[in-house]
Amino acid sequence: MADLIERLLDGLPADAVLTDPDVTRAYAGDMAGFCPPGEPAVVVLPRTVEQVQHVMRTATATRTPVVPQGARTGLSGGANASDGCIVLSLLRMDRILEVDPVERIAVVEPGVVNAALSRAVAEHGLCYPPDPSSWEQCTIGGNIGTASGGLCCVKYGVTAEYVLGLEVVLADGRLLHTGRRTAKGVAGYDLTRLFVGSEGSLGVVVKAVLALRPRPPRTLVLAAEFPSARAAGDAVCRIMADGHTPAVLELMDRTTLRAVNDLTRMGLPETTEALLLAGFDTADPAGDLRAVALLCEAAGAVEVVPAEDAAESELLMKARRSALVALEAVKGTTMIDDVCVPRARLADMLDGVAAIAERHGLTIGVCAHAGDGNTHPTVCFDAADPEESARARLSFDEIMALGLELGGTITGEHGVGVLKKEWLAREIGPVGIELQRGVKEVFDPLGLLNPGKLF
Amino acid sequence: MADLIERLLDGLPADAVLTDPDVTRAYAGDMAGFCPPGEPAVVVLPRTVEQVQHVMRTATATRTPVVPQGARTGLSGGANASDGCIVLSLLRMDRILEVDPVERIAVVEPGVVNAALSRAVAEHGLCYPPDPSSWEQCTIGGNIGTASGGLCCVKYGVTAEYVLGLEVVLADGRLLHTGRRTAKGVAGYDLTRLFVGSEGSLGVVVKAVLALRPRPPRTLVLAAEFPSARAAGDAVCRIMADGHTPAVLELMDRTTLRAVNDLTRMGLPETTEALLLAGFDTADPAGDLRAVALLCEAAGAVEVVPAEDAAESELLMKARRSALVALEAVKGTTMIDDVCVPRARLADMLDGVAAIAERHGLTIGVCAHAGDGNTHPTVCFDAADPEESARARLSFDEIMALGLELGGTITGEHGVGVLKKEWLAREIGPVGIELQRGVKEVFDPLGLLNPGKLF
Repeated sequence: MADLIERLLDGLPADAVLTDPDVTRAYAGDMAGFCPPGEPAVVVLPRTVEQVQHVMRTATATRTPVVPQGARTGLSGGANASDGCIVLSLLRMDRILEVDPVERIAVVEPGVVNAALSRAVAEHGLCYPPDPSSWEQCTIGGNIGTASGGLCCVKYGVTAEYVLGLEVVLADGRLLHTGRRTAKGVAGYDLTRLFVGSEGSLGVVVKAVLALRPRPPRTLVLAAEFPSARAAGDAVCRIMADGHTPAVLELMDRTTLRAVNDLTRMGLPETTEALLLAGFDTADPAGDLRAVALLCEAAGAVEVVPAEDAAESELLMKARRSALVALEAVKGTTMIDDVCVPRARLADMLDGVAAIAERHGLTIGVCAHAGDGNTHPTVCFDAADPEESARARLSFDEIMALGLELGGTITGEHGVGVLKKEWLAREIGPVGIELQRGVKEVFDPLGLLNPGKLF
Repeated sequence: MADLIERLLDGLPADAVLTDPDVTRAYAGDMAGFCPPGEPAVVVLPRTVEQVQHVMRTATATRTPVVPQGARTGLSGGANASDGCIVLSLLRMDRILEVDPVERIAVVEPGVVNAALSRAVAEHGLCYPPDPSSWEQCTIGGNIGTASGGLCCVKYGVTAEYVLGLEVVLADGRLLHTGRRTAKGVAGYDLTRLFVGSEGSLGVVVKAVLALRPRPPRTLVLAAEFPSARAAGDAVCRIMADGHTPAVLELMDRTTLRAVNDLTRMGLPETTEALLLAGFDTADPAGDLRAVALLCEAAGAVEVVPAEDAAESELLMKARRSALVALEAVKGTTMIDDVCVPRARLADMLDGVAAIAERHGLTIGVCAHAGDGNTHPTVCFDAADPEESARARLSFDEIMALGLELGGTITGEHGVGVLKKEWLAREIGPVGIELQRGVKEVFDPLGLLNPGKLF
């Protein structure tokens, strides 16, 4: 241990090597429930590629596991420390190296905060679409690690669509360049995309070339109230089948609406079973909203209210963005599922979750990126109550089982981490797991990078 | 050999196993120049997943190399037979299994022709954007193998963006499911994207879940004439930096324009150095064209002519689509480069190619997906003239070297095949090659799938 620290200090400044347990404990885990992190031996905070290489060479020489880490806003335990590991925090590598409006790219270090990038590129009339709820805290490196999504995905896709090229420090300290700076490129296997969503288990991303888009007009939103999940799900299907591509198409159930009202006093309708927010950033958003309003009404909406303007729209989106925090306030602790199902099964998913909640006597609020079929059933419970906690954990797993039964996936955008390891095996099967393990061994033959995650 | 055929016939109907050399020779190679194919031992044309599994089990048992093949329209030799191999043609697996407008997906077999899919989904008001020039012949399986692009990419991206999930027969005959049917999904490493562009070297795609989009309005196009490559490149940069995203942004140089006129008698302007075609499929294409026309004029366009209507626009696009055939008619044979450079280096690329042509006394026409920086310098030569052929080959390589020098890639959308093997190593370097080889070994430990390609 003393030897490890000494070796690390041989290539890192003293302030980049933290060993005080009171300090390192703060870096031990991300925001996932039910997966207590281990105790790191040391936390390192490099500022340069060379320093990251030094850390990985040291880890290889001493056979010490390494857990790469961003802002620890993840929800699956993917950034959780294992006992005796080096936590490799990329937070200090936070420079935006380049924003190029002609190539429509940004080149960034992994510790750049998502919102900081968004603001920086906005000055050039550009946007970086992926917008996880934690966008004010989470880092691009973390986004790449978990293949993050957000509210934008129904129109703009997920992180994978925006990563053109990477620089990666491998487990043995060597530097790998993948991908490109150009708009297109297909030279060899797509290792860039392989790293996206690999949860730090294949290498440490130290630089990323990201694709940008022209900044769209401000989004105009409508709110539609439905008497049942079935009707709301039907509206989503009608909207997509009719050829609309909203910039956002979000859903909150009654439990979530109440929680948001309790937290924000926003006065959202609490008598409705499901509130749908549909937004457009097109040339004629009001026209698009009118068409979507008719489809909502045809699906059984009891009330459809278009926002007056962009400011009122932003207020509605703020309500949606506060959903998780609001649900956390209900009972102190939440477990957030991330099941994505085919759009046509959205109503089945919502009804199924309600049945699970009732069976276990639990409060489960559902908010969803409805346009993607990506639901976040959120189990609210009192962590101090072991019996309720056990029921919460049980219902969390039942929700994933339901998702798979409906032809969905256990994770639309949060990743596998430690929380869903067994579920990954259930989803992708033994052949898939065998090949994924094989890929892992190619990149990390000693198994030092984020051990115990994914598989 | 007799044993191989017997084993194959054990699980395939007789009409699916071709051994007559006069027949099998027709399946030996794709459309790439300078890479003569080998002689296949046998060509198999399975109709079912089980039959493909039988072929791969037989190949593994007899240690026979397998070359998976679509419509052989590839331009890099990726589908070329090696001596004594089994050519595994997927042409008879050509069923569109599902088109779902709510999920916006199609589920297809690999032998479905790109244009057939486009027409089938159009009936549902949907489109499958990737549109390689060979779209009337090429198959979805081949598109996935080479990660094909096309004219649509500047707005709609490449094949990788549209492949959600795959069924793949592995080298040993086992069946692998990757990805999903849902809009989002991040469960485990992205093996789906790893297969896209892997040129049949990791497994045989037998089914694909593809993402679709609502069919956009018809594209309205303008033609802008420029006195120099520099001015045309400048226009491209201005258009992109100004926040426009055309549905097409194509370029033809003077050599190409002449060739197209000779072939089609279309009367395109031959005095111009570079003709730019910019097209929009937005809500207000005429307005977008007006804005782009001003930018073209500011960049030095001598003439800007918007098409009267969609029909006239389609005529202009037809001219662009006939470019490669037209250039082939110039001297009988062409070598088509596929270098993609940053947009800001487009003019340097065009000028550099002109210098290479002059130095070698060759005719090299350039057409380009200019909005992507993806150029197709096309060397026209007489294959019966060994000396000219040698110069053609030399210039082909010099063009790739120039592309790398300008920060580009050796292949934007055609793939590596056998033609650019050494160049792949130059582009991605020894660490990249080592890892790519490692990945290959995980999926195909005996090295039976499309040996001698990529590396």
